[in-house]
Amino acid sequence: MELYEAIGRRRDTRAEFTGEALDPEVLQRILGAANLAPSVGMSQPWVFVTVREQPTLDAFRDHVLAERDIFAADLVGERVETFAKVKIEGIRESGLGIVVGYDPTTAGEQVLGRHAIADAGLYSVCLAIQNLWLAATAEGVGVGWVSFYREEFLAELVGFPAHIRPVAWLCVGPVAELPEVPDLERFGWRGRSPLEAALHAERYQR
Amino acid sequence: MELYEAIGRRRDTRAEFTGEALDPEVLQRILGAANLAPSVGMSQPWVFVTVREQPTLDAFRDHVLAERDIFAADLVGERVETFAKVKIEGIRESGLGIVVGYDPTTAGEQVLGRHAIADAGLYSVCLAIQNLWLAATAEGVGVGWVSFYREEFLAELVGFPAHIRPVAWLCVGPVAELPEVPDLERFGWRGRSPLEAALHAERYQR
Repeated sequence: MELYEAIGRRRDTRAEFTGEALDPEVLQRILGAANLAPSVGMSQPWVFVTVREQPTLDAFRDHVLAERDIFAADLVGERVETFAKVKIEGIRESGLGIVVGYDPTTAGEQVLGRHAIADAGLYSVCLAIQNLWLAATAEGVGVGWVSFYREEFLAELVGFPAHIRPVAWLCVGPVAELPEVPDLERFGWRGRSPLEAALHAERYQR
Repeated sequence: MELYEAIGRRRDTRAEFTGEALDPEVLQRILGAANLAPSVGMSQPWVFVTVREQPTLDAFRDHVLAERDIFAADLVGERVETFAKVKIEGIRESGLGIVVGYDPTTAGEQVLGRHAIADAGLYSVCLAIQNLWLAATAEGVGVGWVSFYREEFLAELVGFPAHIRPVAWLCVGPVAELPEVPDLERFGWRGRSPLEAALHAERYQR
């Protein structure tokens, strides 16, 4: 698939997982794309944990649904009804979670490009996630980033030591389709705004 | 360009900028790719400031070179000599800086998917940067992420208000070539490690 097509067709997938097992070679290519991401000082500070065991999937899903309730309890007006329609995870349906972590220790103490900006390593991990997401799209595979969780819960669930920070739970698997319109737009939560809204010349303009 | 080819050919560009002006339509496509990135709760929390004015480029470059010296002063042994060979920026040579910021206020107070993880918005900004970087690669355009700077300095330079956090300065422009081998590997700073070093099944293994 062409790059621009992959960028346009990429969706945050929730309801479309078929439950079929992902071809191990496809998974390898997707993760290989992540490992080719740029990283500060070539530190490659990412960790990937593939989770398929049912008790782990179930435990994470229960936690996520409880966090969904916490968010929902704070909503008012039409947001309550609109949010009720939005599916926020496909943890069990996808059958595969890829937990992505940030390990700041992969390249020793003196990481080139990180002395002034501690979060530069965290940024690298996100670049790897986007490579993974686009590669999955090109393979016709769905990815759904779940962020309704507490980091401590996820760290303990997959056994991260204290220095590794969880960055994402990605639901990954074959999908019936990649929808044309993002879920949040389709369900009336929020639509996409044009580039012009974010673009400034020389200096930021209020 | 095919997605996997773009992922493989993407380089962090420093010395290869030709100084030619970037075609405005190409720039528009590259930034459009960034704006199509996934974002938590469809918040699109990114800000792009294109910088071309010479005094701004010069001021940023001076700051970056001073930060380079600070990093260099902490190195010992063979790292000193190895680092001396590494070019860390192409600010003036590229002629165009794209400053990327994180604005947490683009989608109001209740951002779907951010209540438990404050940094989820910051992650979205990084996903947009990777889209931009891959689109540039497909267009034969170089991108070099400079991270030798203090956030306060860059925020003031481009006039970010207090709530917008600078995430990156990207040098962007036509290049003579995209090198086969990353600079840090070529100069002996650090090579790439294989996916297997980062991969775990079910739980993180020490």
